Amino acid sequence: MAVYTEVTDDDLSRLIADYGLGELLSYKGIAEGVENTNYLVHATAGTYILTLYERRVEKADLPFFLGLLEHLSKRGISCPLPIRTRAGAMLTEIAGRTAAVVTFLEGVWLRRPKAQHCTSVGRALAELHLAAEGFPLSRPNALSLPGWHALFDRFSASASEITPGLGESIAAELAHLDTCWPKDLPQGIIHADLFPDNVFFLGDDLSGLIDFYFACNDALAYDLAICLNAWCFEPDFAFNLSKGKALLAGYQSVRPLDPLECAALPTLARGGALRFLLTRAHDWLHTAKDALVKPHDPIAYLRRLRFHQTIASASEYGLEERS
Amino acid sequence: MAVYTEVTDDDLSRLIADYGLGELLSYKGIAEGVENTNYLVHATAGTYILTLYERRVEKADLPFFLGLLEHLSKRGISCPLPIRTRAGAMLTEIAGRTAAVVTFLEGVWLRRPKAQHCTSVGRALAELHLAAEGFPLSRPNALSLPGWHALFDRFSASASEITPGLGESIAAELAHLDTCWPKDLPQGIIHADLFPDNVFFLGDDLSGLIDFYFACNDALAYDLAICLNAWCFEPDFAFNLSKGKALLAGYQSVRPLDPLECAALPTLARGGALRFLLTRAHDWLHTAKDALVKPHDPIAYLRRLRFHQTIASASEYGLEERS
Repeated sequence: MAVYTEVTDDDLSRLIADYGLGELLSYKGIAEGVENTNYLVHATAGTYILTLYERRVEKADLPFFLGLLEHLSKRGISCPLPIRTRAGAMLTEIAGRTAAVVTFLEGVWLRRPKAQHCTSVGRALAELHLAAEGFPLSRPNALSLPGWHALFDRFSASASEITPGLGESIAAELAHLDTCWPKDLPQGIIHADLFPDNVFFLGDDLSGLIDFYFACNDALAYDLAICLNAWCFEPDFAFNLSKGKALLAGYQSVRPLDPLECAALPTLARGGALRFLLTRAHDWLHTAKDALVKPHDPIAYLRRLRFHQTIASASEYGLEERS
Repeated sequence: MAVYTEVTDDDLSRLIADYGLGELLSYKGIAEGVENTNYLVHATAGTYILTLYERRVEKADLPFFLGLLEHLSKRGISCPLPIRTRAGAMLTEIAGRTAAVVTFLEGVWLRRPKAQHCTSVGRALAELHLAAEGFPLSRPNALSLPGWHALFDRFSASASEITPGLGESIAAELAHLDTCWPKDLPQGIIHADLFPDNVFFLGDDLSGLIDFYFACNDALAYDLAICLNAWCFEPDFAFNLSKGKALLAGYQSVRPLDPLECAALPTLARGGALRFLLTRAHDWLHTAKDALVKPHDPIAYLRRLRFHQTIASASEYGLEERS
């Protein structure tokens, strides 16, 4: 949530011309995106987002992310479409940073989504999974089981500073998932971060998906398990069964889960909770006190993990198996 | 340059309806404005800026600022126009803050203005001075001679932390201005902060003036002296005579200066440099190291002050007296 790099009017006018978008009308640094600098740009050709990739982003991954957005857009998914320069490039440079220009999506993210919105998100996630088929590039998920171990190793010694016993809880969960993490589920490209702030609505209609910078290849049902964590818990950490039912039914209306996926859902949900617990705990302990971006509270995901540990079957999330 | 207060989609949708602006399409917190939170809002009726007034703003002054914008807009000045709610109010409340919605102006501010742009700024400043005539409210300038003394008292003991001798230089300049600050110049409403980042251009055409939160009643020529400081020095602190000439000629093409104003210009320019030296020095010493907004370098205005101290006549700024 910060503007790390300033762009001058002259540089941006030139860039807009390179992209064939006409004249620059205005641009404002926007407080979105944790790792990159984003400008909302009005040009005579329309409204766009200019993203400057800051240090934390792996440049080698950008062709995957931008290519995926182009692939998905062509297949009817409402997501930012990378604009190509007159020379055909999706990546350019401005203010010393690698940069991209994408279409701007109207819509707002819902601070208090209802069950009906969860249905829409489930449907959109399944449509995304199907539309991504055939995309030629791939990217391993750096934040799956081996990545979780590596991340935990970086802060296990100080985990108890967040809450007593946190390190032991994480170690036990990692040991459990080591024994039963499913390896034979249908694979594909997943969004991997489809939280409410990455889904736009106009009124009650889903209008677009954004922020594909965690997209990677993994089990499709794991993406759904992340959404269960992200969309179906209340502020008091209670699981909302209506939202669970709605999310899962929406997903299955487009892409029915197979029996292996259904059986694996509770384990995948534990993994999803652990993944966000780990990154949040790490950032909580390692973010400088004067940082522009405040870290999220990790405890919210410890509470979700504890809930998932009580689940014996996906039907408890509201899953209706289709036979 | 920060979003201090978050606004929810539900609250903003209601607000947009109160203002009769149709449906909310999107909103982004923008990294502009030092003291307030600003959102760029797309609604079906158009594009707007929502400002939430944070603690540092004196609420009693808001009717002056917003009323002035409405007065100026009606008289043809391109500046943000405050929207009134269906009930006729210019101020509302959202997220626990007093708030206003104004029209969005397209345009970019020039990082490297040329002399021709200074002509436009001079003309726009004079048009602003004339258009403001008849505005019924008034607001004293809190940052004139008595205010400078009070501000200096707050940091004089630590001024040398910025640069050795700074306190002595400021004290001597204040003593000088106490003896010769002009009191009988034509008065009116001045912008008082018309720096390049508050003037928008589309191509080479001036498209609008923004940020009237320092506007007040004072000598009109003092506003022009502030612009001399803000627009006519190069990054190496050299005065650019072509820009000075252009700014002053642009102003006089709309509102010729009278002989008293011409004679006072060097003194007013010293006051203008001192005013920004004082606020920047204060902020430099008092801004917390972890602040979201980084303070401006005060030395740039010490250098300007030193230059103005060598000026004997306004002709050295490029002023052509009209007889």
